[in-house]
Amino acid sequence: MLQERMREIARLVTDYILNVVKGTPQQLYDAALHLIKAGGKRVRPFIVITVAEGLGASREAALPFAAAVELVHNFTLVHDDIMDRDEFRRGVPTVHKLWGEPLAITAGDLLFAKAFEVLGEALEKGVPANRVAEASRQLARASAIVAEGQALDLLFEDLERVSMDDYIDMVYRKTGALFEASAVLGGLVATDDDETLSALAEYGRNLGIAFQIRDDILGLTGDEKILGKPVYSDIREGKKTILVIYALSKLDGDAREKLLSVLGKRGAAREELEEAARLIIETGAVEYAENVMKDYVGRAKTALGKIDFVNSDAKRLLEELVDFIVKREK
Amino acid sequence: MLQERMREIARLVTDYILNVVKGTPQQLYDAALHLIKAGGKRVRPFIVITVAEGLGASREAALPFAAAVELVHNFTLVHDDIMDRDEFRRGVPTVHKLWGEPLAITAGDLLFAKAFEVLGEALEKGVPANRVAEASRQLARASAIVAEGQALDLLFEDLERVSMDDYIDMVYRKTGALFEASAVLGGLVATDDDETLSALAEYGRNLGIAFQIRDDILGLTGDEKILGKPVYSDIREGKKTILVIYALSKLDGDAREKLLSVLGKRGAAREELEEAARLIIETGAVEYAENVMKDYVGRAKTALGKIDFVNSDAKRLLEELVDFIVKREK
Repeated sequence: MLQERMREIARLVTDYILNVVKGTPQQLYDAALHLIKAGGKRVRPFIVITVAEGLGASREAALPFAAAVELVHNFTLVHDDIMDRDEFRRGVPTVHKLWGEPLAITAGDLLFAKAFEVLGEALEKGVPANRVAEASRQLARASAIVAEGQALDLLFEDLERVSMDDYIDMVYRKTGALFEASAVLGGLVATDDDETLSALAEYGRNLGIAFQIRDDILGLTGDEKILGKPVYSDIREGKKTILVIYALSKLDGDAREKLLSVLGKRGAAREELEEAARLIIETGAVEYAENVMKDYVGRAKTALGKIDFVNSDAKRLLEELVDFIVKREK
Repeated sequence: MLQERMREIARLVTDYILNVVKGTPQQLYDAALHLIKAGGKRVRPFIVITVAEGLGASREAALPFAAAVELVHNFTLVHDDIMDRDEFRRGVPTVHKLWGEPLAITAGDLLFAKAFEVLGEALEKGVPANRVAEASRQLARASAIVAEGQALDLLFEDLERVSMDDYIDMVYRKTGALFEASAVLGGLVATDDDETLSALAEYGRNLGIAFQIRDDILGLTGDEKILGKPVYSDIREGKKTILVIYALSKLDGDAREKLLSVLGKRGAAREELEEAARLIIETGAVEYAENVMKDYVGRAKTALGKIDFVNSDAKRLLEELVDFIVKREK
């Protein structure tokens, strides 16, 4: 049920995006739409649309906000791949690998601009101007926070010690803020009730943090063929994932030195990466991360309970989404 | 009078920006504000505020839109400098030279996000929500067009032949569109009268094209100390400026071959660049460019004549701005 509905909404949002993101020069638009055409779960648009429907608004009215959050998400992927020097995503080469860095930077910028342009189409779908203006502001605020999170993620690569609080703060900014905005934008399609919007923010924020923890786990234990991108790249890039932070807090002596020597080693051999992964896993880092994740799952579900949905199907889907996200294999 | 007023507005807008663009991590915000702190004429915010005042709105109400266009402009500078590998701007090293490319990309993204966040503050200044939503959409549309223009500018580097029509189209997108949006946003502070907004768009668009032609001329004939950036970098980067396009249409034989051999030669010696500049100038390219510029100046002034200003001081300032822009030395 959930997955079928997700596929249905993904098709709708993809079609909508392909319809509005058009122009010249062709190379720029090809580069900008490359990752969108390569797939993706469209989790964020699913949240926007399901929240809007749950509060009694139409799917049609929610589409511009749904497309906007997906465009912001894809813009961050294009730029992050450049910064992290990642070569594959969604099973295809990254944008800068195919079109070069200058055009990839510009393609990301275009997606960002289009997000805010598309958002304005909600006016024609009958969403009141004050709520469209508020949605634009919330999406902009979230995008700024995402940039802060990306900067922290980069800066953490050079730090040996990152606390769990710093990690959660970084992950909220990098991932949680856009989930939060997705839930709030879904709400704004239907209402401007502060309590509802605030509970939606809480749902999205906690769901996003849980999502990122699952991402960290998949980056170490996932199946590359299912993921569509290499595992262990977090280790090669020296990312301070929850697993690495936990492992470093538990390891000492040679094992700690060994792990530190591989973290951030761009040219590390597969065997070294596998050994580093084994060291991390043996500390119990995955179980630890799963427990933290479950905490955020609980908070997301609690927040959902505070909202008066007019459509109980939508509420159930949003609950199922939480479980799906923490069990997903890609 | 004009220049004093420009300095006054520049101070106001800079203070406003520094007040709202704050956060952590510090390095990211330092990088994002680096070029803003280094100076700049703030021509685009000047247009926003002077148009708004000319139509009877308050300067205070215009500030968020004024800050937003300047933030978008600065975001494009940060990213363009990375793509063009420029090392100096406004007399200081560029952002990526000081903080590295990954943080510079993120700093540009942050400025872009903050533009749309700040724009929303117009709601608190009493600008009606429908006009704030429209302003957001117009600024987003302009930003997408700027990305298209930047892509064309990059793609033209690899083309030997670019027509004058293609050049004007590229320059409209790269520079004209944001000037256009600045004038329209100034209008939206005060009115939603379609004829007024359309004449403002015409003013901004033509002014922007004239501005970029002056920029091309300064890139060849300007004084580096006044400019705050090296001359001849357009030649080194193989940019198809109006001067280069004209010169290539006039030169043949050895002179043409010589010019082509230096265009886009990253490691060109100063003497080679000077010879290329001399070849271009001897074709009469500067006079040609000045004539084309005067055409756009005329169109900008004609557009201004269609607008019913309630404040004739502002109208005169907007006229003087056109003359200032085409005579400026930096």
